[in-house]
Amino acid sequence: MTDHLVADLPSGPLDIYRKKASFNWKDMLLFLEGEEILAFKHHVFRTLENDPLFARRPGEDVPMETMRELTFLRVKQLFRYNFITNEETMANPWKTVVLSDCLGTYDWAMSAKFFLNKGMFGATVANSGSGRHRTYVENTENMTTFGCFALTELSHGSNTRAMRTTATYDPSTKEFVINCPDFEAAKFWVGNLGKTATHAVVFAQLYTPDQVCHGLHSFVVPVRDPRTLLALPGVLVGDIGKKLGQNGLDNGFALFHNVRIPRENLLNKTGDVTPDGRYLTPFKDPNKRFGASLGALSGGRVSITRMALVNLKLALVVAVRFSATRRQFGPKDTEEIPVLEYQLQQWRLIPYLAAAYALEHFSKSIFMNFVEFQIGQMVRDNSDRQAEMGKEIHAIGCSSKPLGSWTAQRGIQECREACGGHGYLAMNRLGNLRDDNDPNCTYEGDNNVLLQQTSNYLLSWLQAKLHDGVRIESPLHTVDFLDDFNRILGTKFTATTMEECMDPAVPLAAYRWLVCFLLVESQRRLEQQRASGKEEFEARNDSQVYYCRSLAIAYIEHDCLRRFHEQTTDQDTPAGLRPVLRRLCALFGLWSLSSHMSTLYQGNYLSGREPAELVQMSILSLCSQLKDDAVSLVDVLAPTDFMLNSPVGYADGQLYKNLWSTVLQGNQVLDRPSWWKEFCSDKPVVGSLRPKL
Amino acid sequence: MTDHLVADLPSGPLDIYRKKASFNWKDMLLFLEGEEILAFKHHVFRTLENDPLFARRPGEDVPMETMRELTFLRVKQLFRYNFITNEETMANPWKTVVLSDCLGTYDWAMSAKFFLNKGMFGATVANSGSGRHRTYVENTENMTTFGCFALTELSHGSNTRAMRTTATYDPSTKEFVINCPDFEAAKFWVGNLGKTATHAVVFAQLYTPDQVCHGLHSFVVPVRDPRTLLALPGVLVGDIGKKLGQNGLDNGFALFHNVRIPRENLLNKTGDVTPDGRYLTPFKDPNKRFGASLGALSGGRVSITRMALVNLKLALVVAVRFSATRRQFGPKDTEEIPVLEYQLQQWRLIPYLAAAYALEHFSKSIFMNFVEFQIGQMVRDNSDRQAEMGKEIHAIGCSSKPLGSWTAQRGIQECREACGGHGYLAMNRLGNLRDDNDPNCTYEGDNNVLLQQTSNYLLSWLQAKLHDGVRIESPLHTVDFLDDFNRILGTKFTATTMEECMDPAVPLAAYRWLVCFLLVESQRRLEQQRASGKEEFEARNDSQVYYCRSLAIAYIEHDCLRRFHEQTTDQDTPAGLRPVLRRLCALFGLWSLSSHMSTLYQGNYLSGREPAELVQMSILSLCSQLKDDAVSLVDVLAPTDFMLNSPVGYADGQLYKNLWSTVLQGNQVLDRPSWWKEFCSDKPVVGSLRPKL
Repeated sequence: MTDHLVADLPSGPLDIYRKKASFNWKDMLLFLEGEEILAFKHHVFRTLENDPLFARRPGEDVPMETMRELTFLRVKQLFRYNFITNEETMANPWKTVVLSDCLGTYDWAMSAKFFLNKGMFGATVANSGSGRHRTYVENTENMTTFGCFALTELSHGSNTRAMRTTATYDPSTKEFVINCPDFEAAKFWVGNLGKTATHAVVFAQLYTPDQVCHGLHSFVVPVRDPRTLLALPGVLVGDIGKKLGQNGLDNGFALFHNVRIPRENLLNKTGDVTPDGRYLTPFKDPNKRFGASLGALSGGRVSITRMALVNLKLALVVAVRFSATRRQFGPKDTEEIPVLEYQLQQWRLIPYLAAAYALEHFSKSIFMNFVEFQIGQMVRDNSDRQAEMGKEIHAIGCSSKPLGSWTAQRGIQECREACGGHGYLAMNRLGNLRDDNDPNCTYEGDNNVLLQQTSNYLLSWLQAKLHDGVRIESPLHTVDFLDDFNRILGTKFTATTMEECMDPAVPLAAYRWLVCFLLVESQRRLEQQRASGKEEFEARNDSQVYYCRSLAIAYIEHDCLRRFHEQTTDQDTPAGLRPVLRRLCALFGLWSLSSHMSTLYQGNYLSGREPAELVQMSILSLCSQLKDDAVSLVDVLAPTDFMLNSPVGYADGQLYKNLWSTVLQGNQVLDRPSWWKEFCSDKPVVGSLRPKL
Repeated sequence: MTDHLVADLPSGPLDIYRKKASFNWKDMLLFLEGEEILAFKHHVFRTLENDPLFARRPGEDVPMETMRELTFLRVKQLFRYNFITNEETMANPWKTVVLSDCLGTYDWAMSAKFFLNKGMFGATVANSGSGRHRTYVENTENMTTFGCFALTELSHGSNTRAMRTTATYDPSTKEFVINCPDFEAAKFWVGNLGKTATHAVVFAQLYTPDQVCHGLHSFVVPVRDPRTLLALPGVLVGDIGKKLGQNGLDNGFALFHNVRIPRENLLNKTGDVTPDGRYLTPFKDPNKRFGASLGALSGGRVSITRMALVNLKLALVVAVRFSATRRQFGPKDTEEIPVLEYQLQQWRLIPYLAAAYALEHFSKSIFMNFVEFQIGQMVRDNSDRQAEMGKEIHAIGCSSKPLGSWTAQRGIQECREACGGHGYLAMNRLGNLRDDNDPNCTYEGDNNVLLQQTSNYLLSWLQAKLHDGVRIESPLHTVDFLDDFNRILGTKFTATTMEECMDPAVPLAAYRWLVCFLLVESQRRLEQQRASGKEEFEARNDSQVYYCRSLAIAYIEHDCLRRFHEQTTDQDTPAGLRPVLRRLCALFGLWSLSSHMSTLYQGNYLSGREPAELVQMSILSLCSQLKDDAVSLVDVLAPTDFMLNSPVGYADGQLYKNLWSTVLQGNQVLDRPSWWKEFCSDKPVVGSLRPKL
């Protein structure tokens, strides 16, 4: 049925497992992606593969300067391919995410460079500005100019409100004067600013001539001459240097010395200055205005959840195919078995595979929630529901990003180690994935800091219920069960057999209890801290570890599991796929839950030795049941070999042939070093430089 | 008192914390290192800093070819400095470890390149060979030749016995013929073999003319002409390419096509072949012979434990100094506080600081155990005690390496994230530390595979006690408490106040219970698996997760804690240092224990909610008590700024000044890119390459 859409995979050593799979991998692929997206992805993959500008050399040592040039040229080519028009984006916003998946699968630095200009600069100007800024948007769309988004400074990241760059209005010339009081206020870490940006959206404290500060606003500031790429007067702009990863992207800094820009360059959706210097805003409360101007960032966190997942999926493709073809030891000295046959290897990898499937559905599902919210914003929906949805999406994004990025971080590391030495070879890409994934834990808010936003949201619900008798119920239903917290706190773990325990309903029920327990405990902790005389700031800070932080994590894990569970029971999910999805769901649930066992015991949800043992044995049993499906499960997640770019993970499973030929195709592999004479002559006299004591 | 030995640190923003420290950091430094080692370290640090060949450019983008050349030249210079003579090594073996610490602090690739030649090749030839091999050792000592150690093959790593390279004796020419049957048997991952080695110790299956295989033996095989560095006939030798880290080291491969070497090149300590082709060995059992020939590897794991610790310490210096100077948010809008003041940041970093102090003592302590064992070997001690010590050291090394390398891996990652974006800048070195530490998890045995050796050792003790009534007691006393397992299994957690709980005796007692519990449970699990009809191979494999693996980890954590606790109570430990060491010990113990809480509940060592809460609150309280000491604690661990090579971690605490000036000193930071015309001309026509649909 799906054969015309999806090509067969090459036959080889992986066939053993592929034949044993309990489901049809093409059906799964079609179910997860849909025909249209599948065709689109393959179009993008094929296009890049056929263009020599995108040629791959796995593990090649490319100098940073060359990497940046190549990345720029590739981004320029992406304008020509224009894979998605603006109209297509409006018609199917999911397609932009899929394009980001594809470009990131190729190289995250390229993807970032492309989207920072078009999405981050362009969309911010479009959303925060007005008609007078249209040219800026148009110019980035055809690369007449190149944009970047300049918020963070050398000494400020998380505390965005404390940015120190100023924009002072001068009515005599009708200009804003952009200035950094000192180098610590230099804009820093700005993607595209290092080498290529001609224009920046700069966040600065707006001062009117009466010396009143109206808080952070955004301005379009030209930084380089688009005809020469030379810095404009008063702008000290440069490259912050090498990073752990994503080195094709030029992150930069800019120090502004009284740079004058026209009044009109203020992005004036949430506040404007009249020609004579009066400040006007539709918002009464500057805090609200600030919140609205940063609202554009919320979608970023939902996207990052997905970006991290792409990395996790790629790492799993590599590690599972490797494990299915790498043989080491065996019951007899004469025959070795694939390392995937070892329970330990299964336990290291298969839970992450389950997490990838859970996050696959989850990241799509929350993106659709975000789209619903965005549409409401666009049609200026002023309902309470829309406002509530905004808060809920914020709570979701602030915890889904930590869940996604940390799961990917740990999963990639496990994959790296599970591939042994070969996982440490650059050509197999696991290092690249780890390095490129890392910023997902940090940008758009440090994971640990963001989790506080989520727990604050949950605590405010509990407050509203306890004090005002409000029913806990939210537009996206992520908190609805909390209304029943008293009853839930009285429940206990009741499974007594492994079969029962492997029902996803079991971890789901345990998570409901866990979130309720941590919510009530966090509230109690907070009250204790306040009662002990601490100020609110300190009381909050001292309630994070073991309480609010765990609460936020448990909340989002629960929601991810809940949505995955719904998918596995949905009548629209093909019957032939439901059993394997159900096993993945149960495994994801139990495995995630196993990091909270101590809390479950602490709150007496579990007691005695049986429950923990049941959970553990169910995890091992599910891993074992899934190990014959693992290869097909990663076949579903795998891009083409060209996109994967990891010889030990290619679809033909010819682990050693692919590895060996890539090694031999390397640069000057067999040559003696250019500096060979340094070895052969000028031999060291041992101890000749040793000081005489 | 110590002022003449240790220079004061520069005054600056870190003074606030330094003044609040509860102990004198110079006293701690002197206590941990001793005068002689301190002087030696500073001599090495100063020497490297004064030699332009070792100049540093933090975060510089160095091409791999240049990195290898530089590393080679530096290693050559190390011969000239000859920091430790062979006599000095014999007199004080600890000094070699300290030299390794110093060289690794500078660059692990350089350290590896140096020690692989001198230590790994030289020592293996010396220990596994005989008088006839003396010239090979001498030639590596003055760099006439350059050596490497070739064990692993493309398709075999962990299963060393399955190596497929053969050495067939030809009595007609009195030569061995070294051959790889195919490319999968190519020696692979061999450090120094990529570009520089002239000689390799090659492990191959020895065949006598009667076609009998006598198992794996080691041979000295010339691979490159030392006068030209060109490959010798029949040897396909080359570079395996870029790795995740340590790229100054040239890891390589070699494929041997019937390469002939003289009979005498067999390293003949454990087996020899007569000129006419008869095999002679002092060992009756080929398994024992094999074990003895690989025995040389045991010291490696003890050393790796230490190497990983060096990485963890460097990362902590960076992250703690950063956290003490980075300010973000505060109780009032007008004043920001150092991020180290946040409980969450303390909880992320300070337990790793405690672990570093625990591992500092532990790694030295087990090294001294290993030296004791080595001396026994050298004087051919045939006592039972010596044999027992060999087994015990093996069990320690096989678990201390996982403990050290994983703690470092996780700790470095936490430090990276705790430094936010600035932690992602290459110049701050956290990425380099993570990348360079990673192989510690893999080489000399994958961590997960090695842990099985340790659990097997522990299970054999239980067997001996249960079946033969043997008393459990070992030369290094790491298992003695197990003899009392029945009584220990009856104990419970008894602390009821935080004060009680913060006594290191509490986690120590819990660990004793934990190891006993996991030992008995592992044994029970193994019996179950056997009873269910599984073969021994499968029964063992299926008892690793949650049982044997956890047992090995708990055993080594217990031993690390036990030794640290002894240090904190030792009368030779200065009284002024004991309180802070005691807090570190308690924190390390409770924090390590907190990953086993579920098991403690499962086995009913804990019950009810109080114990877990007590442990958690004690951890937070200890973090808080230690936060004012944290800067001084890392001052003790810190090398000089030159060696640390991380602007955000320099001793003067001028976080932003150091970062900013390093950024501006970068290569072509302010230049427009060489390819600027690519931006300014040849503008893309949007969609010009879009297929017409």
